[in-house]
Amino acid sequence: MTEWQIIEKYFAMIPVKRDDVVLGIGDDAALLHQHQQQQLVVTTDTLIAGVHFPENTQAFDIGYKALAVNVSDLAAMGATPAWFSLALTLPAADECWLQAFTEGMSSLMQPYQLALIGGDLTRGSMAITISIIGFLPLGKGLLRSQARVGDDIYVTGSIGDAGAALAYLQGSLTIDAALMPAALQKLNRPEPRVQCGQALLDVAHAAIDISDGLLADLQHILQKSQVGATIDIEKLPLSTLLAKQLPRELAMNLALSSGDDYELCFTADPLQQTQIQTIAQTLQLTITKIGKVEAMPGLRWVQQDKAGSFHRENIGYQHF
Amino acid sequence: MTEWQIIEKYFAMIPVKRDDVVLGIGDDAALLHQHQQQQLVVTTDTLIAGVHFPENTQAFDIGYKALAVNVSDLAAMGATPAWFSLALTLPAADECWLQAFTEGMSSLMQPYQLALIGGDLTRGSMAITISIIGFLPLGKGLLRSQARVGDDIYVTGSIGDAGAALAYLQGSLTIDAALMPAALQKLNRPEPRVQCGQALLDVAHAAIDISDGLLADLQHILQKSQVGATIDIEKLPLSTLLAKQLPRELAMNLALSSGDDYELCFTADPLQQTQIQTIAQTLQLTITKIGKVEAMPGLRWVQQDKAGSFHRENIGYQHF
Repeated sequence: MTEWQIIEKYFAMIPVKRDDVVLGIGDDAALLHQHQQQQLVVTTDTLIAGVHFPENTQAFDIGYKALAVNVSDLAAMGATPAWFSLALTLPAADECWLQAFTEGMSSLMQPYQLALIGGDLTRGSMAITISIIGFLPLGKGLLRSQARVGDDIYVTGSIGDAGAALAYLQGSLTIDAALMPAALQKLNRPEPRVQCGQALLDVAHAAIDISDGLLADLQHILQKSQVGATIDIEKLPLSTLLAKQLPRELAMNLALSSGDDYELCFTADPLQQTQIQTIAQTLQLTITKIGKVEAMPGLRWVQQDKAGSFHRENIGYQHF
Repeated sequence: MTEWQIIEKYFAMIPVKRDDVVLGIGDDAALLHQHQQQQLVVTTDTLIAGVHFPENTQAFDIGYKALAVNVSDLAAMGATPAWFSLALTLPAADECWLQAFTEGMSSLMQPYQLALIGGDLTRGSMAITISIIGFLPLGKGLLRSQARVGDDIYVTGSIGDAGAALAYLQGSLTIDAALMPAALQKLNRPEPRVQCGQALLDVAHAAIDISDGLLADLQHILQKSQVGATIDIEKLPLSTLLAKQLPRELAMNLALSSGDDYELCFTADPLQQTQIQTIAQTLQLTITKIGKVEAMPGLRWVQQDKAGSFHRENIGYQHF
């Protein structure tokens, strides 16, 4: 198959129609209609085989996840995703792989009505780069820099499960396979918190999605906002797997430092507590208060009988 | 250096300021201010070491070219480039390489006032994906599908030089090095025809940038427009190198089938001939009429004493 035949067969036909796509795949560039009273929100993420997902990950999951991590970045701004481009580098044109990959991508495109507007297909080591564009009402947006002293710190869902799944797949965590499906689902098909981000637009101050681990990502908020924080280790939202099946220290390390959960971490005025619980009930999504923003720089923790500081060494994933 | 230190040192500081960038590098996504009465134009291109440029290409040239090929796609629509994201995958964080790469990219950002709004930095085989966003006035745009029977076919600049330079670097063309600087410049630092594309907005019908070779790219126009064409081999715009230094058959093959020139190929009503020559004079850019759009499907050629058809086998570069 030629590059163009692959694009025609697998990518140009994905059935999402949006009135705002004037011209989609097939020309030098896509033409898009702008929406009144909206800002554009743009992000780009690359997934590399063996770095961002295990080499033997199913093509469906790779397609899903490559899109999900980008959608998640927009969710963390409170934005509504709309259009994306796909730069796909593959060692060979394997039709079974392409079919499953596009099905995985498509399964996330449908619920959010996302349009694939273009991209590039090249031969090389497997890499997937997606650049996604969404909208935010003028003047709105959840920025990392907006945390304020006195804010409560919240996390959606549970954290550490994707890290546990990765450890299991890599053989460093030995556990009954029957306990793993939910965690593997979180690793392979994370659910971007788009509705939650949108609902928080007039409620939260700062937000970020947890891709590199809670400590690393919360520190991004603290640095950008020039504040500090204390989190309560006892309050971390753990799944049944982490709370009941893993040694406590391992569970805490996973919840604090493993990435790939794509939950939201955000800060909000304590007066918003009731509103946040209403959002949690409406979305049927656990939202847990885990700490407090403080004036003193740095990130500290407390737990029963103990307290301390997190240091640079134990925070999150670094690519270099 | 950490991923974030690299981004801060080499990418977040590139001095292009645009009022329409509300929030640039450093959050989950960029926030951009839309312009009234404009459509968005978006394209994405990946460059892979050893595929799109020789492995030993200078970092400055890689940075320049990765951006230039994307700007060129917008030029082919008649659009004005504005913002871009960079997904950079590198085997290691080499500071000298990064410095030269960003200088090359920056040298094209300055004249067009392009803002780098975000991206991703990952470790792996070298690949550079840029996604660029530009503008077009509502209702305007040079599309591949707009060629009409009776149109003249034009090419800007000269073609085949980048192909000659690549053959020289790969050792398949033996020639005095003193003759090569201009062709090497075209290979490594192609000049996107942005002003020309903009000037053609109310003048030309269809346009494309020549990245895969004249025959391949012209055929894209013909297929999308459901027309055919005849081109006059004697009229192909050849540089002095191709016209005077290379065997005629090799020069013709390079001009017809080698890629990477990033000149524009466009079609226009014959009534626009004077206007097109005015544009050529204003921009000090050669624009050459090379053929005619016809109703009969297919791409044909004529030259002194001969005529024929181009077949699928000899057209352009296919990645798969």
